[in-house]
Amino acid sequence: MFKRSLKVLLSNPPINRVKPSSTIIQPLSNTTTTTIINNNNITNFEKMTHKKSMTIDNICQNVRNAQYAVRGELVIRAEAISHQLQKQKTEGTKTLPFEEIVYCNIGNPQQLKQKPLTYFRQVVSLVECPDLLDNPYVEKIYPADVISRAKEILGSINNTTGAYSNSQGIGLVLRSVADFIERRDGHKSDPSEIFLTDGASVGVQRILKLLIKDRSDGILIPIPQYPLYSATIELYNGSQLGYLLNEEKGWSLEISQLEHSYNDAVSKGINPRALVIINPGNPTGQCLDRANMEEIVKFCLEKNVVLLADEVYQENVYVKESKPFISFKKVVKDMGGDYADLEMVSFHSVSKGFVGECGKRGGYMELNGVTQDVKAEIYKLASIGLCPNVIGQLVVDLMVRPPVAGEQSHDLYLKERDNIYESLKKRANLLTNALNNLEGVTCNPSEGAMYAFPQIRLPAKAVEYANSIGKAPDAYYCIQLLEATGICVVPGSGFGQKDGTWHFRTTFLPSEEAIEGVCKRIADFHQSFMNKYK
Amino acid sequence: MFKRSLKVLLSNPPINRVKPSSTIIQPLSNTTTTTIINNNNITNFEKMTHKKSMTIDNICQNVRNAQYAVRGELVIRAEAISHQLQKQKTEGTKTLPFEEIVYCNIGNPQQLKQKPLTYFRQVVSLVECPDLLDNPYVEKIYPADVISRAKEILGSINNTTGAYSNSQGIGLVLRSVADFIERRDGHKSDPSEIFLTDGASVGVQRILKLLIKDRSDGILIPIPQYPLYSATIELYNGSQLGYLLNEEKGWSLEISQLEHSYNDAVSKGINPRALVIINPGNPTGQCLDRANMEEIVKFCLEKNVVLLADEVYQENVYVKESKPFISFKKVVKDMGGDYADLEMVSFHSVSKGFVGECGKRGGYMELNGVTQDVKAEIYKLASIGLCPNVIGQLVVDLMVRPPVAGEQSHDLYLKERDNIYESLKKRANLLTNALNNLEGVTCNPSEGAMYAFPQIRLPAKAVEYANSIGKAPDAYYCIQLLEATGICVVPGSGFGQKDGTWHFRTTFLPSEEAIEGVCKRIADFHQSFMNKYK
Repeated sequence: MFKRSLKVLLSNPPINRVKPSSTIIQPLSNTTTTTIINNNNITNFEKMTHKKSMTIDNICQNVRNAQYAVRGELVIRAEAISHQLQKQKTEGTKTLPFEEIVYCNIGNPQQLKQKPLTYFRQVVSLVECPDLLDNPYVEKIYPADVISRAKEILGSINNTTGAYSNSQGIGLVLRSVADFIERRDGHKSDPSEIFLTDGASVGVQRILKLLIKDRSDGILIPIPQYPLYSATIELYNGSQLGYLLNEEKGWSLEISQLEHSYNDAVSKGINPRALVIINPGNPTGQCLDRANMEEIVKFCLEKNVVLLADEVYQENVYVKESKPFISFKKVVKDMGGDYADLEMVSFHSVSKGFVGECGKRGGYMELNGVTQDVKAEIYKLASIGLCPNVIGQLVVDLMVRPPVAGEQSHDLYLKERDNIYESLKKRANLLTNALNNLEGVTCNPSEGAMYAFPQIRLPAKAVEYANSIGKAPDAYYCIQLLEATGICVVPGSGFGQKDGTWHFRTTFLPSEEAIEGVCKRIADFHQSFMNKYK
Repeated sequence: MFKRSLKVLLSNPPINRVKPSSTIIQPLSNTTTTTIINNNNITNFEKMTHKKSMTIDNICQNVRNAQYAVRGELVIRAEAISHQLQKQKTEGTKTLPFEEIVYCNIGNPQQLKQKPLTYFRQVVSLVECPDLLDNPYVEKIYPADVISRAKEILGSINNTTGAYSNSQGIGLVLRSVADFIERRDGHKSDPSEIFLTDGASVGVQRILKLLIKDRSDGILIPIPQYPLYSATIELYNGSQLGYLLNEEKGWSLEISQLEHSYNDAVSKGINPRALVIINPGNPTGQCLDRANMEEIVKFCLEKNVVLLADEVYQENVYVKESKPFISFKKVVKDMGGDYADLEMVSFHSVSKGFVGECGKRGGYMELNGVTQDVKAEIYKLASIGLCPNVIGQLVVDLMVRPPVAGEQSHDLYLKERDNIYESLKKRANLLTNALNNLEGVTCNPSEGAMYAFPQIRLPAKAVEYANSIGKAPDAYYCIQLLEATGICVVPGSGFGQKDGTWHFRTTFLPSEEAIEGVCKRIADFHQSFMNKYK
């Protein structure tokens, strides 16, 4: 029989282009014990032992090196605890000091009880079952505008959600997205430049695939960043070129940092191909102002790098008066001239904002200034994946074309939308205030997105202890928080951070009823952690 | 302003590991005209011209080289004609000799009017809108077993389809899949070895990513094959190792061919990592018998290659008496000993069979004999993509756990299922018979899957003419068929074929009312094509 290595669900530290200040995940061992017997004549198989074809050492090492902390070690541990809690419940025993896991590791609002928008779900429900349109009770169940919207959608998809669509997306939805962008920006948008995707992630991955040949191609990413970028750059064997956001100035983006990273890469023979901007920021929550965006656009054109504008949090802006969301598409078109044709890809998603339909995996990307032959290659990549899931596409349609004034569902839609938005804003403030009250903790306000990213100044003894057991200090802190409270957050080392600083990312998505309790439990834990290691 | 190359939506011939007998897609030009002015001081942008950052020559060339004919040149042309037809309809003019495009290029049954299964759609419809459960009319609309199934599902997903699930999939669905496999095979299946995926394609791509480091890693694929494999191997910079199926013996799979390809690769310094088997075959439609499968399993264990079992057509077997579907999982477990632990990944999907829910993008893969640490890497790849779309996951649940005897929906489910199956079988025979009646055409019977893959012996003059305009002869034939009849099929060169032979792949998915007309139009076209070039 096979001897297998019994490593736990952990992987190795990344070969990072960005100097990693720490890694959350530590290798236990690099060796895999296998009995190797090469036997070319298999007749007596019962007695044969056999080496494994796939080992941790001979698979693609880019996969091994890639890190995705948002669903990494801590979340795997949280899920194990969750099973323990369930068992505890059925058995009527109680060994853990909390009742449930609070998943603050990921922006997944409906997991934490955000209600879906009624109109969206009614339309999808009816579209799934077109036979209902002939049912005499249909009008008792669905409002008239839902029925007419469902009919319109069905007319554009051969009356079924069960067929592959065009690889680029359903024509009706591409047109809706273009109209939405035009209304938002006051500039033309061409449906043929839009690709629907299974969430924004798939779009990001396709563009990075296109841009990266090998390690000589680099991608500028913020530090801290959303680890989809670092993981995908590693998977495709590219180079991460981190540029530091300035925490002291509210996570501001400084062109000097872009210049620094750019020049550093060039001096090492790496060709910077693209600049990733996440606005509003993830995990940092800052919003860019127009002047800053114009500088960024100038940088891209000057350096001839593609701008990748991750704008999935465009509806999550809590400082609308001082810094309303402005898309990069609008900025380049307003700037005009060659700027208007800047090579750029913008990403959006149904998972965030007040829609929060993460499970639907819907999203889109809009190309700007991309040549036709390169676009044909993007189309080919989409076609190899056949098509984005149809329901996700339809939810994109609903997001960009919600009920309008005069339609039956309009008032309810506005009410639900505004409630979610106001509540998120309130919780953002509540959480960052609570964090700022903790000893040794500072947290910039969350101007946008769904996260707080506090800096935690850990006692020297805690850092020492964490190092002694091979853990990044912030990872150690987060694991202790999880074990003590059931609250699952992600260490700053999973996003990248300035050397010698420690952070964690938490969402502010627990419900209004729950969030004060969450803050209180974090505060209690923090105090006892600090006391222990002081 | 930019000068851009105005290439049409075409790409370049592949750098194939397998010697390509021909390529469907021909380059028009390799040069991209750009005005290159390096200007580091952008102040006078209105007057500035600027080179493009992304050109066809500097993007990742694996993307450029990858080919996916199933949605390639012919389909793009078909869509253009379809727009022309629509215009013609609105304008009341008539310039084309047919009324509509018949998409036989892809196994997309609901696009060609296959009705979805009622129970599936009712459950999804209700799950999307849990508020309906409190509506007094709900029982007038949904049968009782649909209501209880919806409640069960909602209970397993926090009452919403809008949250990301676990990256591996929803626990309830993983358990259902394992139970299905146990019932099918008579052997244990462990839910922790199952990963739900957005269709089978995503699973295939993940495993190939894991297996391929660079060109020194090879993947054995059948010739002809489904181009997802060739395209993905190219995208990940691996080597395609084609093994020929024997057309004269009903597309049989001969171990000598596997040995030949294997040895050929090794002699070139390429390490064969995996063997892809598509059973029932795509595009070839043949079904494997048990003796053949056992030989294949022995080959894999002897050569230490991973078996990738593409079994998405397992419900599409039309020779159930002589060659019932047997899964590779069952074969290895029946063989026992080391064979039982053969490293293998099996793929299945909701897109094919009688379910035909392509638009839902649901599927799963089951691992066998994979070590825990390699499995952790597969989990990590899944987590970087967050999770498969939730509705797709739920449709997997419905596929593997349909209504049972005694439930209200059971009879209708059986009736719908059997009608679709019987009709597919009938159409398969009808089409292959019609093809075999054409001059110079032979077509093996479609024992399974959804396709016929006839060999067409083209007159020398036609081959000559096609070559003179830079087209593969079968691609030329298919384009002419499309332009003359509106029927869209895919040239054999898109799947790979023995040198000097020409084929095309067509689905037999047009409805029973339509398929005789389709056969007649193919026959008429074929005759006139042959007459023209005789």
